[in-house]
Amino acid sequence: MLIAADLRGIASHGVARARRYVDGLRSGAINPRPVPATLAETAAMIAIDADNGLGQPAAIAAMRAAITKAAATGVGVATVARSNHFGIAGYYTSLALERGMIGVASTNASPQVCPTSGAEAMFGTNPIAAAVPGEAGDDFELDMATSVVPRGKLERMAWAGEPIPDGWAIAPDGSAAQRHATLVAGLKQRAGFALLPLGGAGEQHGGHKGYGLGLLVELLCGPLAGAAWGRHTYASGTAGLGHWFLALDVAALRPLAAVRGEVAAMFAELRGSRPAAGAPPIRIAGERRRDREAHHRARGVPLYPEVVDDLRAVGGSVGVALPLAMAIHV
Amino acid sequence: MLIAADLRGIASHGVARARRYVDGLRSGAINPRPVPATLAETAAMIAIDADNGLGQPAAIAAMRAAITKAAATGVGVATVARSNHFGIAGYYTSLALERGMIGVASTNASPQVCPTSGAEAMFGTNPIAAAVPGEAGDDFELDMATSVVPRGKLERMAWAGEPIPDGWAIAPDGSAAQRHATLVAGLKQRAGFALLPLGGAGEQHGGHKGYGLGLLVELLCGPLAGAAWGRHTYASGTAGLGHWFLALDVAALRPLAAVRGEVAAMFAELRGSRPAAGAPPIRIAGERRRDREAHHRARGVPLYPEVVDDLRAVGGSVGVALPLAMAIHV
Repeated sequence: MLIAADLRGIASHGVARARRYVDGLRSGAINPRPVPATLAETAAMIAIDADNGLGQPAAIAAMRAAITKAAATGVGVATVARSNHFGIAGYYTSLALERGMIGVASTNASPQVCPTSGAEAMFGTNPIAAAVPGEAGDDFELDMATSVVPRGKLERMAWAGEPIPDGWAIAPDGSAAQRHATLVAGLKQRAGFALLPLGGAGEQHGGHKGYGLGLLVELLCGPLAGAAWGRHTYASGTAGLGHWFLALDVAALRPLAAVRGEVAAMFAELRGSRPAAGAPPIRIAGERRRDREAHHRARGVPLYPEVVDDLRAVGGSVGVALPLAMAIHV
Repeated sequence: MLIAADLRGIASHGVARARRYVDGLRSGAINPRPVPATLAETAAMIAIDADNGLGQPAAIAAMRAAITKAAATGVGVATVARSNHFGIAGYYTSLALERGMIGVASTNASPQVCPTSGAEAMFGTNPIAAAVPGEAGDDFELDMATSVVPRGKLERMAWAGEPIPDGWAIAPDGSAAQRHATLVAGLKQRAGFALLPLGGAGEQHGGHKGYGLGLLVELLCGPLAGAAWGRHTYASGTAGLGHWFLALDVAALRPLAAVRGEVAAMFAELRGSRPAAGAPPIRIAGERRRDREAHHRARGVPLYPEVVDDLRAVGGSVGVALPLAMAIHV
């Protein structure tokens, strides 16, 4: 799944994260031999306890359970509690697409985002991923943090040396955060920095909407799932995160081919609509990541030297050498 | 339902809309005697054809069907096709709250919002309403357009004489729309004006996320529901709108009282968190509308003179006099 993220161009969730998972498994913060349990189950829903294992296998099992229920009843919902970082949310909605289903996936995360009118990081960047099947692989695939930007993007920009625009994040005194290193470290250390919700500070440009969406994810993945939430995640040596998944069987409502055809027609109209002057092409969510993936599969995934060095060190610590193809290029 | 909107402080969806519905019913654009039909049904889903009747009764029936299915299977989804404007999305999620359920409601609408990189209105302001039960009526109740602002807010601001901030809407030449009357008329007449998606123009502040959310609603309410979409709504004399509803039975996963208690604890932490300097109080989605409703129930709903005049004219056209309580004050 780390390589899947790198292929999609989401480097912050790629092999750069190997250390985080290895460290967690070695320290005991993540349970390497979890025994997941079903907490509750109905015809269309299931609640799972991940027993503090890695988030990825728990989330895959949950999304598959939602898909199985959707195949039987039309729609399936799965929650996961006592879990860990689950990687890229869009991976799970891809599983629904493979079955011609609509998928939704979300998770809560360490507190990094402030509420509207607030200056303290109170909940996570809480991504919402949603996928709707189109034609010939031209699917709708949204995968977005509910903050203006995810922390991972700040990390990528730090590697690339790009500046932080105003309206993304605030320093402890409420002013715009301007230095990557200070901001990323301040977020990790819960030192008074905060990312702003989608729509930015205040309400004039809809910041209360981004805050509302982030809080909705926190409610579904926290109290509903029975997981930790807000500042209580990562609070007692374990993450305690929660996830929420939905699968909806398109064919239970309408012929799948008809829906795919209308989706394709909608995308064609959007792409052919009047462009803004000087703007890049009009795209559909998911299009850019598929372009990136095709490019990366053909040309390989470029890694920043810091990432390769870290990967070599992590590998060395568990007796795994850097693959020859990577070692050659650095 | 119009009065419910006025009570909530959403004047644009209140009695000010009476003319629209009356005109539609009299002209035949809206069917006054619809015979709704079930297009498809599974244990957890239902697809309804509203037979071009008013959106409100069709949407209430659909949300109630979703709630009934959720009570049986844990989660229920309902779609509606061949419908009309359904008023405030948050009304339907209130129906789920009454049953201790989580509710989601959305609809597509006439094309007023441009895609990221685009300059042409291609889909509606496509609201997302979501509600999660809290304690003692302190519920989470989000009801948001996926554009920076809904057109209704522009209409209210025009009545109140307030200026349009940059970053809300664009004129046909791509510049910021600045005059209410021109913008509102331009949107209605499809004259090249467009509202910007949440996050604004371009991608720097997440405009592609607001675009993605609006498009997700268009896909669920259009192709999935079997309704008209994009520029094809209101294209052939009827609206042809689609809606999408979800109800989720909290008690099927966890004890409802426990979830309510954790939701209340989360809200207390958010409200008690460090405020931004000079900002209004930190609120939870739904709080302001309940404050407004309490105020309006105690003090009455103020109406702009233009609205009262229009209401008097509409009433006169169908032989209904203005209620005495309203006539006295104007």
